[in-house]
Amino acid sequence: MHVPSLIARKRDGQRLGDDEIRALIHAYAIGDLPEEQMSALAMAVYFRGLDDAETAAWTSAMLRSGETLDLHGLGRPVVDKHSTGGVGDKVSLILAPLAAACGLTVPMVSGRGLGHTGGTIDKLEAIPGFSADLDAAAFTRVLGDVGCAIIGATDKIAPADRRLYALRDVTGTVPSIPLIVASIMSKKLAEGLDGLVLDVKVGRAAFMTTLEDARELARRMIATGRAMGVRTAAMLTRMEEPLGLMVGNACEVEEAVDILEGRGPAELARLCLEQTALMVHLGLDIPLDDAHLRVATALDSGRGREVFGRMVHAQGGNLDALPQPREERVLRATQAGFVSDIDGYAIATTLVKMGAGRQKAGAPIDPRIGLRLVATRGDRVEVGDPLGLVLVGDRPVQDDHVEALAAAFAIADAPPAEVPSIYEVVGLESQSALSL
Amino acid sequence: MHVPSLIARKRDGQRLGDDEIRALIHAYAIGDLPEEQMSALAMAVYFRGLDDAETAAWTSAMLRSGETLDLHGLGRPVVDKHSTGGVGDKVSLILAPLAAACGLTVPMVSGRGLGHTGGTIDKLEAIPGFSADLDAAAFTRVLGDVGCAIIGATDKIAPADRRLYALRDVTGTVPSIPLIVASIMSKKLAEGLDGLVLDVKVGRAAFMTTLEDARELARRMIATGRAMGVRTAAMLTRMEEPLGLMVGNACEVEEAVDILEGRGPAELARLCLEQTALMVHLGLDIPLDDAHLRVATALDSGRGREVFGRMVHAQGGNLDALPQPREERVLRATQAGFVSDIDGYAIATTLVKMGAGRQKAGAPIDPRIGLRLVATRGDRVEVGDPLGLVLVGDRPVQDDHVEALAAAFAIADAPPAEVPSIYEVVGLESQSALSL
Repeated sequence: MHVPSLIARKRDGQRLGDDEIRALIHAYAIGDLPEEQMSALAMAVYFRGLDDAETAAWTSAMLRSGETLDLHGLGRPVVDKHSTGGVGDKVSLILAPLAAACGLTVPMVSGRGLGHTGGTIDKLEAIPGFSADLDAAAFTRVLGDVGCAIIGATDKIAPADRRLYALRDVTGTVPSIPLIVASIMSKKLAEGLDGLVLDVKVGRAAFMTTLEDARELARRMIATGRAMGVRTAAMLTRMEEPLGLMVGNACEVEEAVDILEGRGPAELARLCLEQTALMVHLGLDIPLDDAHLRVATALDSGRGREVFGRMVHAQGGNLDALPQPREERVLRATQAGFVSDIDGYAIATTLVKMGAGRQKAGAPIDPRIGLRLVATRGDRVEVGDPLGLVLVGDRPVQDDHVEALAAAFAIADAPPAEVPSIYEVVGLESQSALSL
Repeated sequence: MHVPSLIARKRDGQRLGDDEIRALIHAYAIGDLPEEQMSALAMAVYFRGLDDAETAAWTSAMLRSGETLDLHGLGRPVVDKHSTGGVGDKVSLILAPLAAACGLTVPMVSGRGLGHTGGTIDKLEAIPGFSADLDAAAFTRVLGDVGCAIIGATDKIAPADRRLYALRDVTGTVPSIPLIVASIMSKKLAEGLDGLVLDVKVGRAAFMTTLEDARELARRMIATGRAMGVRTAAMLTRMEEPLGLMVGNACEVEEAVDILEGRGPAELARLCLEQTALMVHLGLDIPLDDAHLRVATALDSGRGREVFGRMVHAQGGNLDALPQPREERVLRATQAGFVSDIDGYAIATTLVKMGAGRQKAGAPIDPRIGLRLVATRGDRVEVGDPLGLVLVGDRPVQDDHVEALAAAFAIADAPPAEVPSIYEVVGLESQSALSL
């Protein structure tokens, strides 16, 4: 294998063979292919792309750089969900126990937040005592006992992808659809899944800002999942405003519990139900309508809430000790009208600056910091009405941050147009025709 | 400076500012910018290019990563020539002493061969005792005494470019015109030149295979030279067959001496005269016709030959001890007709395999190995007539190499069309209008 020639072939728009991709990734995984060659290859891939077969080969080689799980001994279909990341996205916390309550094993390996999107692990770690660092044996034990568990990515799962991601982060090669697909799918498929639901977020507060890009990402991930024998479907969902009313870490856990207890915002509840139903549909091979019914029953009966409690307990967490904000500062409307827009991206980046997220990997975060929306899109407000509550942690809040959060709420004379929260489901029809 | 953002801007087709390019190259030069970021940037530049101003900034930053010469104390215009590399290209050996004999200082910093093109330093090092490793003081002394000197690139001249070149070599980023321009020009302009002639070779045995690419490379190098205050012109010359009759190292020195003594192939002589005249024209600021006359006089009077002898002597070489081939093997025509084509690329790659050049930087070469053309393009040959002589060194010659050399000669029934050896001169007219 002459690496510069392979890089040059990709640079010139030719495709690489499965064996060549396997050899490249294997060499990278064992340290034989230096970072500077991988970064040049990644940039060539940014420009020239990888086709579906190349992406599947890349994904599978990344996956095989580390350990993979086999959870079929637990006797239930193994299904997971992956979200491309949004603001206020606590869906995993709700969906994992609901899906487990419906008879699935949900071995969720999740990430910490970096940049403006939150991380499921950060939210869970707001719960005192909660451990996201289970080894494979402990993970499998909780999965067997509870049906779901959520742990952080370890060095053992797709370690080559972890190194490649760090490399892409410093070399301007993050926004390459096939590399994003390979990165997501190698980690997810290492969980030994039967089914996978992808929540591809679209909008200014998401990684994909246009429906077209999101559709392409979804299509590519579905193709890769199927190439590797996993039933895969995707949901394209709106990510302009925050999802739900809470943005932060501890407060999002609270909102997840609210949903599991039948309270909380209806739109968030609906999204969780739809995505969980899709998982159940793929995992149990039952019609989508039946899956909906099962999920609704799991929610209404309180079984989802119960599974969540058992999962948190099994992972060492004490939900009763969830930290509360030191104080709350009210954001008030300075003009009357309709809330026409809430800029989720602006809210998220401001909260990161305040300490709710991290600007640098490994930085500490304050789980109490957050924002609770009081007014939502379309609400009528008068001057002085509360728009939101800033949840304050240890550090005093800077005025410019408060101003930035208030400025994220746009007020207009007329109510805004109605918008869907779920744009479309991709991959369901054709897959049903194939195998479901 | 946030390097990933700068890489991303170039990736997205935006231009970088002079200060940004300077900061990037400076950081690379001092080791603050890691290789993996530079290789990703180089690949982005491969796809997106650099405009003239960016290329000039890049070149100037590369140049300033090391030492630069100031030879104006010697009191004569400082002019050099650079060839993009060909097969049998011994022009530098002839042109440097001729230009010096016409009143120029020619501080030639040249390369060793790598790949199929020969290196001027390799040819000179075929002369026993010749040293291409002069320090700046010794280089300046020889230049003052003789008017010309030819040394190898040192770590002190544009060291960042040397590292970048090695990086590009392993990352598929060699064939980027702006990076080629910056690499060539940073090293050449570090010589503190007043004028520079570029010999851009075109054809299958050259780096540029089409006239269009060669023209673009020439145009970009001229723009960069001028942006840095150096009178620059380029000659686009044919590189399909070998240049002259000799290909190798010791044998090319012999042919250079032949030319300087008024013998040798006329076409090679003409190319040397034309390029030297261009140097004299740029350096002395005299009309091109007058420059031609001066160069012809320097050749006819034997002063060029004399300067060559003094340069070799000053650099420790003993021309009388030039190594001779251990034996010669005759390549014979197996059919009658006209020599319609001689594949310079095939000859060069075969000679490299035989040990006349190196496939890997730092590998030893045998200066005696070579090929002497007996028949040239257009010659009529009968079956059994000699086409060439394989000049044999220490190692016995493999039959497949002899066959490959013979196969480089194509014989046809009709004589081939006449072709020019000089396609065009670029940058002369407009520059004359500007300043000459």
